[in-house]
Amino acid sequence: MKIYALLTSAGINIGLCALFLSLYSVLRKQPGNVSVYFGRRLAQEHGRYRDSFSLERFVPSPSWIVKACQYTEEEILSIAGLDAVVFLRLVVFSIRIFSIAAVVCVFGILPLNYFGQDMQHHAHIPSESLDAFTIGNVKMRSQWLWVHCLALYIVSFSACVLLYYEYKSIAGMRLVYFTRSPPNPSHFTVLVRGIPKSTEEPFTVAVKNFFTKYHGSSYLSHQMVYRVGKIQKIMTNAEKVYKKFVHLKDTDFDQRHRPHIYRCRLCGGTSNTFQLYRNESDLSVKKTDLGHSHSNTEEKECAAAFVFFRTRYAASVASQVLQASNPMLWVTDLAPDPHDVYWSNLWLPYRQLWIRRIGTLLASIVFMFLFLVPVTFVQGLSQLDQLQQKFPFLKGILKKTFVSQLVTGYLPSVILQLFLYIVPPTMMLFSALEGPTSHSGRKNSACLKVLYFTIWNVFFVNVLSGSVISQLNVISSPKEIPTQLAKAVPRQATFFITYVLTSGWASLSSEVMQLFSLVWNFFKKYVFGGKDDPASVPTFPYHTEVPRVLLFGLLGFTCSVLAPLILPFLLVYFLLGYAVYRNQLLNVYCSKYETGGLLWPTMHNTTVFSLVLAQIIALGVFGIKESSVASGFTVVLVILTLLFNEYCRQRFHPVFKSFSAQDLIEMDIEDEQSGRMEEIQQQLHPAYCQFPPYTQDVCDVEIEGPSDVDGQDSSRGLENDFSHPTLPGFPLSRLRRAVSLLSILVKLQNRRSLK
Amino acid sequence: MKIYALLTSAGINIGLCALFLSLYSVLRKQPGNVSVYFGRRLAQEHGRYRDSFSLERFVPSPSWIVKACQYTEEEILSIAGLDAVVFLRLVVFSIRIFSIAAVVCVFGILPLNYFGQDMQHHAHIPSESLDAFTIGNVKMRSQWLWVHCLALYIVSFSACVLLYYEYKSIAGMRLVYFTRSPPNPSHFTVLVRGIPKSTEEPFTVAVKNFFTKYHGSSYLSHQMVYRVGKIQKIMTNAEKVYKKFVHLKDTDFDQRHRPHIYRCRLCGGTSNTFQLYRNESDLSVKKTDLGHSHSNTEEKECAAAFVFFRTRYAASVASQVLQASNPMLWVTDLAPDPHDVYWSNLWLPYRQLWIRRIGTLLASIVFMFLFLVPVTFVQGLSQLDQLQQKFPFLKGILKKTFVSQLVTGYLPSVILQLFLYIVPPTMMLFSALEGPTSHSGRKNSACLKVLYFTIWNVFFVNVLSGSVISQLNVISSPKEIPTQLAKAVPRQATFFITYVLTSGWASLSSEVMQLFSLVWNFFKKYVFGGKDDPASVPTFPYHTEVPRVLLFGLLGFTCSVLAPLILPFLLVYFLLGYAVYRNQLLNVYCSKYETGGLLWPTMHNTTVFSLVLAQIIALGVFGIKESSVASGFTVVLVILTLLFNEYCRQRFHPVFKSFSAQDLIEMDIEDEQSGRMEEIQQQLHPAYCQFPPYTQDVCDVEIEGPSDVDGQDSSRGLENDFSHPTLPGFPLSRLRRAVSLLSILVKLQNRRSLK
Repeated sequence: MKIYALLTSAGINIGLCALFLSLYSVLRKQPGNVSVYFGRRLAQEHGRYRDSFSLERFVPSPSWIVKACQYTEEEILSIAGLDAVVFLRLVVFSIRIFSIAAVVCVFGILPLNYFGQDMQHHAHIPSESLDAFTIGNVKMRSQWLWVHCLALYIVSFSACVLLYYEYKSIAGMRLVYFTRSPPNPSHFTVLVRGIPKSTEEPFTVAVKNFFTKYHGSSYLSHQMVYRVGKIQKIMTNAEKVYKKFVHLKDTDFDQRHRPHIYRCRLCGGTSNTFQLYRNESDLSVKKTDLGHSHSNTEEKECAAAFVFFRTRYAASVASQVLQASNPMLWVTDLAPDPHDVYWSNLWLPYRQLWIRRIGTLLASIVFMFLFLVPVTFVQGLSQLDQLQQKFPFLKGILKKTFVSQLVTGYLPSVILQLFLYIVPPTMMLFSALEGPTSHSGRKNSACLKVLYFTIWNVFFVNVLSGSVISQLNVISSPKEIPTQLAKAVPRQATFFITYVLTSGWASLSSEVMQLFSLVWNFFKKYVFGGKDDPASVPTFPYHTEVPRVLLFGLLGFTCSVLAPLILPFLLVYFLLGYAVYRNQLLNVYCSKYETGGLLWPTMHNTTVFSLVLAQIIALGVFGIKESSVASGFTVVLVILTLLFNEYCRQRFHPVFKSFSAQDLIEMDIEDEQSGRMEEIQQQLHPAYCQFPPYTQDVCDVEIEGPSDVDGQDSSRGLENDFSHPTLPGFPLSRLRRAVSLLSILVKLQNRRSLK
Repeated sequence: MKIYALLTSAGINIGLCALFLSLYSVLRKQPGNVSVYFGRRLAQEHGRYRDSFSLERFVPSPSWIVKACQYTEEEILSIAGLDAVVFLRLVVFSIRIFSIAAVVCVFGILPLNYFGQDMQHHAHIPSESLDAFTIGNVKMRSQWLWVHCLALYIVSFSACVLLYYEYKSIAGMRLVYFTRSPPNPSHFTVLVRGIPKSTEEPFTVAVKNFFTKYHGSSYLSHQMVYRVGKIQKIMTNAEKVYKKFVHLKDTDFDQRHRPHIYRCRLCGGTSNTFQLYRNESDLSVKKTDLGHSHSNTEEKECAAAFVFFRTRYAASVASQVLQASNPMLWVTDLAPDPHDVYWSNLWLPYRQLWIRRIGTLLASIVFMFLFLVPVTFVQGLSQLDQLQQKFPFLKGILKKTFVSQLVTGYLPSVILQLFLYIVPPTMMLFSALEGPTSHSGRKNSACLKVLYFTIWNVFFVNVLSGSVISQLNVISSPKEIPTQLAKAVPRQATFFITYVLTSGWASLSSEVMQLFSLVWNFFKKYVFGGKDDPASVPTFPYHTEVPRVLLFGLLGFTCSVLAPLILPFLLVYFLLGYAVYRNQLLNVYCSKYETGGLLWPTMHNTTVFSLVLAQIIALGVFGIKESSVASGFTVVLVILTLLFNEYCRQRFHPVFKSFSAQDLIEMDIEDEQSGRMEEIQQQLHPAYCQFPPYTQDVCDVEIEGPSDVDGQDSSRGLENDFSHPTLPGFPLSRLRRAVSLLSILVKLQNRRSLK
């Protein structure tokens, strides 16, 4: 690939980017797109949007970038949560380290590479091959290879220092976030799975007895998990409809457009009519309560429960200690956030999980290797000669310079990009099958899978298939890998540069444009006549964006010393990404749950992996160039980097696994002294209600003190619990409720048809 | 190698074995060797040994085998502890599985292998090459390979079933052993390391404040760890001498030989004289107590302490929960047994440990590879042709059949064996440098290192260097390994058979003979005129014996289907081993500390590794023989075996890491109800006294309730603690004690010279 082709590609991409960003700056000002571009604001701030017509609405402006960058870290923390801050920190880290690398490599190494061979071979710069700017152009046993080695040292050292301070500050932020945030029910709650089945007593009695006996001083109450059947699903859907109707009344958004009358699109009735039915339905529920749903309850109960404790420390201890001598029974974990619970996985038997985990792992690996097919095809495109040999009829078309440049410089990345779109949903599916108990756990697991997938398929397969026919041959001889990589990476550097241009820049444009939401919103609003639904604001797709940013980091590190020409393009990507991601986190996405920066260790480890990979490739290059001194120093560098990683793991990683006794106890004491504890404890039970909030009364049980349980009274008390109408007795009462809801819908429908 | 050579080798070994075992049965009856062959009985049972002269004493008899086999498992458990039972279980497991394998393979596979080629090629059986009995003799694409595959299935399936029940029963035994054993101080004690240094308060105050604040309800007291200097070491040695003198009076062993007068060999004085000095020394200590050793104490304190808790559960919780938000500070672990504490490692700063662990790991790997040199040489011996080419002058000697048979059949194993003797001490040294806090931890770590070392150097290097010139080439192409192994293992089977004969059988003979102890005992007693010292009974060398048994298991599994001729020899080894190890555990070795069967997971994992390796090699063989059906079935088998291992890990392994809340709390309640708790708690402090038992008064501190600490009184109370003469104030008072002890020795010496 020539400089000319690169410039063509860059030109196309810069043009497209500018076009999309201008388009975005116009589109975001249209009131119709508020729900697309300001979803979070609508949902969380209930802000009204002025709908004044002005010419300004149709003039593109970069003011949104300025606005996005004005927010401080504290503001972002309070708006979008710690996860968002950690993600932005990753982008900032990338900007910092690649600025350093760009200065060092572009001014130090690029001239060395270019003038590595005798000058007479050089053509005019625009038609110069890009390979002339890589380390491949440096002479064998060159005296100047120590400069490359020094640059590698500077980059590695700066990266380690920056990483260390990032890890330290994020660990600190996690702690502060945890201690300063308002009391969270999840800190007091433990998810118990693998409750042993017994014929004598139902699960709920077993849980109560176990925790009263072994954690009597700190056990508060518990909430069983119920298995959701078909009827339940129908009912949940019915309730969703119901909620939407209710929302129409409650919301104050868009009041100016359709004041006072909330016409239901389905039936045309006003909300008042509906209000009537709501009361009716409530009444009917109250009337038709039956006391004896014992046998049904037992059938549907799962071997899982949320157990509530009096203090954070007690919950933390209960979640970490082995409960029973059979490790498959009474398995305890800290419960996820109430909003974060992945209810449909909770009923899975704990014994199944290990096999599910292995199964999905194997499935992911198979998927990863099947993906070789399109990648190999794409790879073929960038080597045009091979393509022409295979498809001789293309010769005529490919002879035209522009087409040829387009095919080599642009098409491969686009095709690869299209195939890559199916990866995140697939990995999310695998992760859901794995059986995580929280949405965030599922997303983090998918993030890891997508990360491995991306690095393997974009980096390794492209690099290795460029130089060897079969990748499998290379995997089977690890000793050869450094040399193979060293030969291939500089050669594939041009592909990576175009990849940054197309995939990187384009992904940011498409992210900011939200093309899919925009089209969907248009159809929903103007074709189906739907309404904005503030409840359906998406969460930030960490499982696609984190792997993407980390992949570009990997490309940056591996190419920085070998082919520094990639660095300016990468810097532009990260700078643009900084503005775009800030904007999106502040305006578009909603943070429904929070992991407290749990993704940072993954980011840290991947960055260290990238560094070590870059060093190993450099080692291979120095080996090929027969520079033993540089090789020796690089080996030392690899060892030092690995030691640094191990130190960070020892020093910081445990903080990301659990909180310390010291912090937990101090928070407990503080709450105890301020008298807030009672209030917090009363909120635990409602928070972990399996069924939607408006049926909250179903879950409200009195908090039982351990004094309730003594001698004969306890057994009678338990029986009473079951016949108690307000206990979580899902099936009968809930079925009735569902039927009444459906009957409302039928009535509404009838009314409409009568009219 | 021919059958003839094998029989020669077997003959030599059977002869040697019989000789050694007969010699042992005579030697053990000699009263002079009591301390060599009945060390444990002497030390623990204080049994007297009858010294009646009879002819019976000089007649070899196998009665010791009968005696050793008479004990039940319960008796061994009570005598030698759970670790010994677990080790014997491993031997029993090996006997069972290799009995099954021998029946299946010798009757099913051996004839198939032998008649695999056309009969005309066969010579007379005694001069038949051993290769004729391996799978190498089976024709390509033979119809009979499914029998091999079936045999592999039977062996693998039996092994998994046996392993499952062993794991289950050992996990159960561990639990029973833990709950039924008398209260152990280590269950109530937590070892804290990484106590933060502060200029304001000494470590002991920091520990007290921290645990009173965060574990106030369960914290009992603590005991600082002191750094041992040169003077302390001299003093400890002096005290050891003192203890030996004291022991001479207390012991009732050997009373009939030298009744009433215990003459000290050093000075000739009677024990009465000594008794006088002992009182004197006690007096002098009491007299010269000085009150103010504050500054000295502070200097020598380490950032480590034993913290005692009121209940087992509290200690277990404190050891598992992260204490401070900096994971390098306040690091807690359950304390080892008092007898098991490795005092000289306790003062190591916790921050150093991770780098020490990495360092020793690297050192072990380097040591493993350096060992290639002698192994390659040994390997050369078994392939005589190569040797003759290299050293032409040997041709004359080697032409003699007997010498040739000796060199190929016997010498290689002997040389390898001699080199292998230096491995366990080296690994013990590495493990000590790693910084474990207990002797058992050090031994287990050394056991793992020796295991990896043995498997690598005895199995892999021998196998691979037999077929490829450089091992490193093979490591670098993992895809080739199954094929290479498949080619090499049947070829090296003869070496492994001789290895079982020489190394296996000989190791048992030497184990039972205790040659080194015997010689040392002889010299000590009859040349230097020393006395039996019951305190110096050795502990069982798990770090050499477990890897040895596991290695033979590995050889058995890998060769069973390919070269079944090894199985009878192996069975003899395990049967003999069963008798020998029982005998040694019952009579010779003392169990000073107990890990509760912590080695079983290692044994289980290694056995599964051996199984999978055997299956992979079989896979390679089926591949070479072009039997795709057998290959397919073997792949399934590998996956099933790995799944089985994962299931066992999930189901049983957590029990070996910590005990469950349920068990701990029930034990606590039981002790509480029986009123034993007070008594147990009072014994905690003396148990973890850093300095020898007779100076116990130094460590006796009153147990402080949390009520002691309130307001101003606490600070004064602490000062008092330091000036208290009975507090662990090592330096001055102990120095005085040492000096007085030395002066006693000098006096005794003077007395003698006067006489």
